[in-house]
Amino acid sequence: MTSLKDHSVTQNGTGSDRIVISVDAMGGDRGPAAVVAGIARSAHKNPTLDFILHGPMAELQMLVNKRSELSGRCEIRHASGIVSMEDKPSQVMRNGKDTSMWSALESVKNKEATAAVSCGNTGALMALSMIRLRKLPGVNRPAIAILWPSRNPQGFNVMLDVGADIRADAKDLLQYALMGASYARNGLDLKKPRIGLLNVGTEQNKGFPELKEAYDLIEANAERGQFEFVGFVEGGDIPGKRCDVIVTDGFTGNVALKTGEGTAKLIVDQLRESFTQSFFGRLSGLIALPALKRFQKKVDPRRVNGGVFLGLNGTVVKSHGSADETGVSAAVKLAFELANAGFSDRLAARVASADELVQSDTTENRDTKDKSNT
Amino acid sequence: MTSLKDHSVTQNGTGSDRIVISVDAMGGDRGPAAVVAGIARSAHKNPTLDFILHGPMAELQMLVNKRSELSGRCEIRHASGIVSMEDKPSQVMRNGKDTSMWSALESVKNKEATAAVSCGNTGALMALSMIRLRKLPGVNRPAIAILWPSRNPQGFNVMLDVGADIRADAKDLLQYALMGASYARNGLDLKKPRIGLLNVGTEQNKGFPELKEAYDLIEANAERGQFEFVGFVEGGDIPGKRCDVIVTDGFTGNVALKTGEGTAKLIVDQLRESFTQSFFGRLSGLIALPALKRFQKKVDPRRVNGGVFLGLNGTVVKSHGSADETGVSAAVKLAFELANAGFSDRLAARVASADELVQSDTTENRDTKDKSNT
Repeated sequence: MTSLKDHSVTQNGTGSDRIVISVDAMGGDRGPAAVVAGIARSAHKNPTLDFILHGPMAELQMLVNKRSELSGRCEIRHASGIVSMEDKPSQVMRNGKDTSMWSALESVKNKEATAAVSCGNTGALMALSMIRLRKLPGVNRPAIAILWPSRNPQGFNVMLDVGADIRADAKDLLQYALMGASYARNGLDLKKPRIGLLNVGTEQNKGFPELKEAYDLIEANAERGQFEFVGFVEGGDIPGKRCDVIVTDGFTGNVALKTGEGTAKLIVDQLRESFTQSFFGRLSGLIALPALKRFQKKVDPRRVNGGVFLGLNGTVVKSHGSADETGVSAAVKLAFELANAGFSDRLAARVASADELVQSDTTENRDTKDKSNT
Repeated sequence: MTSLKDHSVTQNGTGSDRIVISVDAMGGDRGPAAVVAGIARSAHKNPTLDFILHGPMAELQMLVNKRSELSGRCEIRHASGIVSMEDKPSQVMRNGKDTSMWSALESVKNKEATAAVSCGNTGALMALSMIRLRKLPGVNRPAIAILWPSRNPQGFNVMLDVGADIRADAKDLLQYALMGASYARNGLDLKKPRIGLLNVGTEQNKGFPELKEAYDLIEANAERGQFEFVGFVEGGDIPGKRCDVIVTDGFTGNVALKTGEGTAKLIVDQLRESFTQSFFGRLSGLIALPALKRFQKKVDPRRVNGGVFLGLNGTVVKSHGSADETGVSAAVKLAFELANAGFSDRLAARVASADELVQSDTTENRDTKDKSNT
């Protein structure tokens, strides 16, 4: 059995320079072969990276043995059960102890690994993460944050929540702003991220009362939370450059994410089709290939694969269910970068101070509004 | 002054074969020149089309005189006021009597024209349409429906509401389903449109209680409403082929629309960039030009320009504020096709019968559920 015995394991990249990522090998649409191929690619690129891989021992052992990059860097933990895409979160919470997903989270809970990666069922992964890792003190609703291609210099914007919870009140939205700012600082290396609150117009009188309340709360906390609040933003700003972090409830965020993904895929498919419709189309497609590849690489969702669960005691990266080798490797890279930045501890500290802010805000919100940084 | 005196004017294309469209020349980002260019293009393509054009007489007269296609087919109605993009709907309702927008709706109200087209302020246009044309009997909230490029054979799906109102209860969503089905029948020529209700998952237990209530109401009315109900759909189905009409509240619909638009624009811009980055990129771009043009024509938002206001006594098409000649012409074409199909009267009949359905549904909803067509 491959094991980590030769390497010391650390929590956040300080002390030893090795980072351990816990990976759920099962539950993705392409099975464990794609997952092992993905972590092998990551292992090749990042020599300081080690893995604990969870799933059926015999099957995983065979796949891992074929990859020389993983030799001595990938410990396998046997788990016979698999969470399927159809399993209800409540079922998995009750009966999922033998699953690879449960086992993968256990390694983070026990501090053997700094972050977990799974391609499995999102609802089940969030439910298990909540009961195994528990919410950070002061967090009411954890959120899923994704990176979306944008016109900003960093190439991506953060959007949250994209579906951890369908509801969010004003205080939840403030916490999303603080968690999103922390993610943007650590994941996108932005010193003072610009936060926008998603609405149907940029005027202050637009939208639901909860949104206006959230506007005031976020605005009042901008200076102390070390972010800039740009106010209300619209759907077009998600891929835009008006802000770096888009804050919204999980219902709206999920619809926006899937609409954007679906539209992008339709365009790329139609583009491919327009290059195969005729002989000249195919010829020009061949000649245009390098430019098209450059383009595809830039917008390829597999290269920005990974929703991060924020607000838990530990980092969990949800890879797309259909992720292939490239997708899995992108998710592992994201987990590695966040682990390397000590993100989990930084976020915990940020949210703890935010909790105090929210407590005091309920009374002083209106007074401090004028002094805040907008 | 150009006038329509030589042509008889009809309401819906029956009787005489001429269709009159009322056009607000002002309020768009590109000014009246783009509007006049757009209607001239439409006049050239559709010999049965006449216009009443609203705005400052002298300026419009000069623009129209330059277009021989419009000779004898475009009556100008003087209106000195302009609704700007910044004007609040409430202001326009109180003080907007002298505006070209108000005047354009008046021609539909007085049955001189079958449909109105405006590139102006959406909120003001909806507010004025509500007070001047009034809601259809039985309609609680009018909706804005748009066409979105899709993988369906007809090339487009209908989505509503995209922003007439930020709220919608279960009965409103049923009315949107009925109005959307009517629009798809008349605008996309689909005999039995497939309706989907937008949610964050396709399982019946997902989403808010209002959505589950709407699910039951729409399901129970599918057979009598002559549509097929496919159940819950996700953001990815908006450009997909699971259904033809996507029903949602105006907040979610507006965010989805703008996210999709923004993402599509980002992709097209990045594609263009990838063809100009190097000499070979530019060369291959040149060679790939015909295929790229085919592609752009297919996804060009200017060619599907026009949100239709549903649930009013009369058809109003809201063109994009930044519409150029091509965009205005597309909006006029949509208004023409709907007028030609007698859409306004058909929708009114459909909603009137729907009103009865909703009345009876409140009691018999659960009983009829099993018999409905899903």
